[in-house]
Amino acid sequence: MKLARIGEEGAEKPCIYQDGTYYDVSSRFIDFNESFFQQNGLAELAQLHPSDFPVISGRLGSCVARPSKIVCVGLNYADHAKETGAEIPKEPILFFKSTTALSGPNDDIIIPKNSTKTDWEVELAIVIGKKASYVSEADAYDYVAGYCLHNDLSEREYQLERGGNWSKGKGCDSFAPLGPYLATKEEIKDVHALNMWLDVNGKRFQTSNTNQLIFNVPQVVSYISQFMTLLPGDVISTGTPHGVGLGFNPPIYLKPGDVVTLGMDGLGEQKQLAKAYQG
Amino acid sequence: MKLARIGEEGAEKPCIYQDGTYYDVSSRFIDFNESFFQQNGLAELAQLHPSDFPVISGRLGSCVARPSKIVCVGLNYADHAKETGAEIPKEPILFFKSTTALSGPNDDIIIPKNSTKTDWEVELAIVIGKKASYVSEADAYDYVAGYCLHNDLSEREYQLERGGNWSKGKGCDSFAPLGPYLATKEEIKDVHALNMWLDVNGKRFQTSNTNQLIFNVPQVVSYISQFMTLLPGDVISTGTPHGVGLGFNPPIYLKPGDVVTLGMDGLGEQKQLAKAYQG
Repeated sequence: MKLARIGEEGAEKPCIYQDGTYYDVSSRFIDFNESFFQQNGLAELAQLHPSDFPVISGRLGSCVARPSKIVCVGLNYADHAKETGAEIPKEPILFFKSTTALSGPNDDIIIPKNSTKTDWEVELAIVIGKKASYVSEADAYDYVAGYCLHNDLSEREYQLERGGNWSKGKGCDSFAPLGPYLATKEEIKDVHALNMWLDVNGKRFQTSNTNQLIFNVPQVVSYISQFMTLLPGDVISTGTPHGVGLGFNPPIYLKPGDVVTLGMDGLGEQKQLAKAYQG
Repeated sequence: MKLARIGEEGAEKPCIYQDGTYYDVSSRFIDFNESFFQQNGLAELAQLHPSDFPVISGRLGSCVARPSKIVCVGLNYADHAKETGAEIPKEPILFFKSTTALSGPNDDIIIPKNSTKTDWEVELAIVIGKKASYVSEADAYDYVAGYCLHNDLSEREYQLERGGNWSKGKGCDSFAPLGPYLATKEEIKDVHALNMWLDVNGKRFQTSNTNQLIFNVPQVVSYISQFMTLLPGDVISTGTPHGVGLGFNPPIYLKPGDVVTLGMDGLGEQKQLAKAYQG
């Protein structure tokens, strides 16, 4: 199944996406949120016939409702670690994105006030299906609901030059476009064989495959669950490959009017227009 | 006003605390959560007469419901920066605590599986009253609902020796006891003149005053709002003074059976028993 959310920001309706059509299932579910996943909503959804529900169109929101947290893995592709001048990590590097950064897959990217270093990162994101604490790698897939595409937008000055942790450069509003849809795990034959790409203004910047992940999906889920409890609906973003703006000499950053497009096998595409913040 | 939450974990009821008695206002409010603060719940609460409501007793939960985020300021007391061997920060250091770490003020501290370096940190926490983005220091108090006591528990190996950001050592379950109550801002005459203390097994380890904060309340609220949108009910923890276990030579960490007590002028006291994780 493919799950999407359609409607204006904050008023999105849960939908099933099938053969190019979105079916509005808001008569049966409030939203694709923590309690949906917790109360076995996916199993209930699988019993429905999408064509029994009204067709809907409009703005795509984040494919899941605001989760308790977005945990990200840093430097999880060797070629990206290299381009940023960092060592290949011995164990996963973790950081959080503020959940207020969530946006729809085709929403505008808002370049923050005074920002000069807004950068892109195509990533595979995992959506958690049930509460996970001290989960083994062998059991990790049991806790995965599915996968979606994520552009882990990053302000490099805020992230790297303003002291301390990376939090400042990762959670600006509009910095986490998620979707177009959540593909449940049975839709994705091999999550470690997905091609991904990202273009800016039609020029290819990132191209890789999830077979290049240093720490793979079960490793990442198990690892994070040793340090904190993952809740149903929580999002884990698995890191980006080579080709971010920071890696060029001189670096290349987004400016108003730039168009970012990205995609991943089985997880659809996103398209964002970069805009200056207007207070 | 003083707001508290009483009941078993996940089923806490919103209460007013007055003259040593808790009054259950769950007939009027679902919880002290994002929509409570957003919908001007504090003003509505101020119209009520607590004694019109039933008296309630029982376990104290976190004084606010799970927020969208807990943002923390690191190294915000000069003497604490010094004891950890860090430089005094030029601008606030920010990190997140997983919101699954929230617990009641007197709940047990669960020492994580395989942890040997669980440490304490008495802190002043700020609760946000309304949506805040690019707020000036001059306006910052308008966005503050009130204050509460926080023990920012930290696993130092996870935080400092496991690579990358501090996230791994800050968000373990039970690592954010909050309360006993939220004191609304008008209850606290001068938020920058509050004595605080923390004892382990009756021995004083931390003692300081919020007049020692490097970055004060309006500075911190304004600063964070430049990087991310703060939502009603969000929690900001302002940092801890000198006297954490990490600062001793050799360091002193919590072991099962230890009792941690802490308090702050106008914000009450907490008491926690440290226990080993039992899977």
